[in-house]
Amino acid sequence: MPNPVDAIDQYIETHLDASIAELSRLCAQPSVSAQGLGITECAQLVAEMLRARGFSTQIHPTRGHPIVTAEAKGKSNKTLLFYNHYDVQPPEPLELWDSPPFTPTIRDGKLFARGVGDDKGHIICRLAALDAIKAVNGEYPCKIKFVIEGEEEISSVNLPPFVQAHARELQADACIWEFGGVNHQEHPQMFLGMRGICYVELSVELLSQDVHSGLGGSLFPNAAWRLVWALGTLKDKNEKILIPGFYADAQPPTARDLEMLAQLPDATGDWKKRFGVKEFLKGLQPGIELQREAVFVPTCTICGITSGYQGKGSKTVQPARASAKVDFRLVPDQDPEDIVAKLRAHLNAQGFSDVRVDFLGGEKPGRTDPDHPFIKLVADTAQEVYDAEMEIAPMIGGSGPYHAFAHYLHVPIGAAGVGHPGSQAHAPNENIRLDLFVKGTQHTARIIQRFATE
Amino acid sequence: MPNPVDAIDQYIETHLDASIAELSRLCAQPSVSAQGLGITECAQLVAEMLRARGFSTQIHPTRGHPIVTAEAKGKSNKTLLFYNHYDVQPPEPLELWDSPPFTPTIRDGKLFARGVGDDKGHIICRLAALDAIKAVNGEYPCKIKFVIEGEEEISSVNLPPFVQAHARELQADACIWEFGGVNHQEHPQMFLGMRGICYVELSVELLSQDVHSGLGGSLFPNAAWRLVWALGTLKDKNEKILIPGFYADAQPPTARDLEMLAQLPDATGDWKKRFGVKEFLKGLQPGIELQREAVFVPTCTICGITSGYQGKGSKTVQPARASAKVDFRLVPDQDPEDIVAKLRAHLNAQGFSDVRVDFLGGEKPGRTDPDHPFIKLVADTAQEVYDAEMEIAPMIGGSGPYHAFAHYLHVPIGAAGVGHPGSQAHAPNENIRLDLFVKGTQHTARIIQRFATE
Repeated sequence: MPNPVDAIDQYIETHLDASIAELSRLCAQPSVSAQGLGITECAQLVAEMLRARGFSTQIHPTRGHPIVTAEAKGKSNKTLLFYNHYDVQPPEPLELWDSPPFTPTIRDGKLFARGVGDDKGHIICRLAALDAIKAVNGEYPCKIKFVIEGEEEISSVNLPPFVQAHARELQADACIWEFGGVNHQEHPQMFLGMRGICYVELSVELLSQDVHSGLGGSLFPNAAWRLVWALGTLKDKNEKILIPGFYADAQPPTARDLEMLAQLPDATGDWKKRFGVKEFLKGLQPGIELQREAVFVPTCTICGITSGYQGKGSKTVQPARASAKVDFRLVPDQDPEDIVAKLRAHLNAQGFSDVRVDFLGGEKPGRTDPDHPFIKLVADTAQEVYDAEMEIAPMIGGSGPYHAFAHYLHVPIGAAGVGHPGSQAHAPNENIRLDLFVKGTQHTARIIQRFATE
Repeated sequence: MPNPVDAIDQYIETHLDASIAELSRLCAQPSVSAQGLGITECAQLVAEMLRARGFSTQIHPTRGHPIVTAEAKGKSNKTLLFYNHYDVQPPEPLELWDSPPFTPTIRDGKLFARGVGDDKGHIICRLAALDAIKAVNGEYPCKIKFVIEGEEEISSVNLPPFVQAHARELQADACIWEFGGVNHQEHPQMFLGMRGICYVELSVELLSQDVHSGLGGSLFPNAAWRLVWALGTLKDKNEKILIPGFYADAQPPTARDLEMLAQLPDATGDWKKRFGVKEFLKGLQPGIELQREAVFVPTCTICGITSGYQGKGSKTVQPARASAKVDFRLVPDQDPEDIVAKLRAHLNAQGFSDVRVDFLGGEKPGRTDPDHPFIKLVADTAQEVYDAEMEIAPMIGGSGPYHAFAHYLHVPIGAAGVGHPGSQAHAPNENIRLDLFVKGTQHTARIIQRFATE
């Protein structure tokens, strides 16, 4: 009789075709949250796949798209929670896809489809791990729960209040985040926190219509100028954010954080090549200061500006309207609602009460204790499967509903999955590598097994 | 035998149908300079119309669209020059036209067509005045010249060097500008100068592609921020332009200018209604200070800004590129090329050598001596025809190739024509009023007659 771990690993390998067939079925069902396309159908399909494995499921309506929850009993009384999302990014521009986005296609050892990496591959990876465990052991080793939302790609507006309201049903001892995978060196990677975000639109409208600049330029207020001046009060050329109190709640990294940052590989060469970066902000060079800046310093980024004439050549027009999209990435313990209030007060104090602020979405920053035993478990099992040390970042620059899980459920959050740097998430030709699907599934199975018994 | 002036007036009235038929023929020929549509055909048609009246004509190729010149002999040796343009604005958006833009249509005493007011109605008005004079007197009373360009709507790039190079052939004693007409009170109006313009595009490109704001916002330079900060150094919130030396050559209005400004009607009520202006820049109230600001103070106007995500909702992206269209309206003796050089030097001095400056077009400011006898002649004849005193502005806020005529040909420049405030120039449903076509033609005929003999 083989070692159960080996048997599970082997089951995952020999059943790869069936897993990919199920993943293809899930990817063939469009579920574009931004466009409201196929949402209900996809939520039902995911629930059906869970029910087929003995899970009791619920589809919870929200003000937006429904949230699927599922629960299955297991041998021990410990509970492991998986967070995933069934929605995907819009597939456009369609002409850049080599195969249709909702016709999953295998080429060169990869499966191509919209959502295959983000996040449907992770859903099926977890189901495949559970299948292998059950096939070998006859039962799940612990209680398993899922929360699978349909709005991750449109900033999870309804998830945090749902998690708060359902904290008792979702109670767990640990959580695995929606994504995981390997870095450029094929090392498994994990992060122990996500920055928060406060996304606003600033807009100015001062005239009822555009006007000839020979007239308006001399006498009428200019929405574009007002917007430029208002933006100019938010941050100086040295990247210092000038909103009073903005940094008040920002916590510096701990000694333990700096220790972890020091371990991270240098990605600056890759960024220079991929994004054409010539020099980094503040003249930063590769090293701990740059790693610290990347995640532990809050930001204010202009994501877009629009006003007036934007075509070729010249048009002598003074625009009636101007607007900008701005995101603030927040670090613990900043709060998006507090930041919006400070922004509004600052603009008023600077004489820009004519600049409207619309709060388009916010998420609080969240963190996991790096010394929680579950984190070591995730890293140890990763090393066994990938035969390489796990890269562990204390926090990543991006944002997600991390805080809701960390704060309302008090769970440590680990990562395991099928991601790789070339997966083209959010872009045409999104893909996963089949070899990494196997490894991610084996890692997930080991986490479940080890967690249940430790 | 009737008084020749009455006979000419009467001829113009009784031959209105023929004039409108010829104007309709000219308007049915598209000539959209921005789109290069029908340009050659329209230049030929205009030349043909002039040749049919005994003019010798020439079609001069330029780097852009051809310029038509024409000359006819007359009784006296004095020469009157007409400046016009045969090109028109793009007709889009087509769905807002009540009749097709290139199918001239009469409704409610108006002729509707793209270009009918700007500037084809003025071309035919002048030809109709000449026809009436010749029918009554048997000959033109003086030498008549025309310069009719095909690039006025795309900032007359090739006209000033053409006028300079052909100053001898174009030599004249006075000039009538391409447009004229009545104000809101149905009073004839004239202006004695145009501001110059310096139109630039500022652009910044710092990355090879857009990047997720969770990464780029912390570490990579942001093109939109660089542009906002650079723009912020150009002008302060009190409308003061901060480019060193910007105001150095700006001449203040003379006592005579202020006298003319004091005579101008107050248009602030109309602007508030038409453009939804709530308050004017610098808190200006109706009066001489506002009139002065409107034309004698140079400006810096943002005409458009574009960068990054501009759609609905939020996208967490850091833009690789950002650009802005900016126009400076110049007063005598500012020079657009000097302003571009000062702008470039200023941006460099402020640390913005990464901001590219493209000079998209420039025109120098130009003026006519308000006490030139030709100006009195134009005003006196206007009063006779319109039975109202002519409104005379020392300068207008807009720009045109005025300087080329005033400076290279040393001619006083007057105005007469078919314009009215509701003519929708550059907009859908462009039109002229037939009653004002008659008056503008009668005024033009009187100018020619009086000029030849005074």
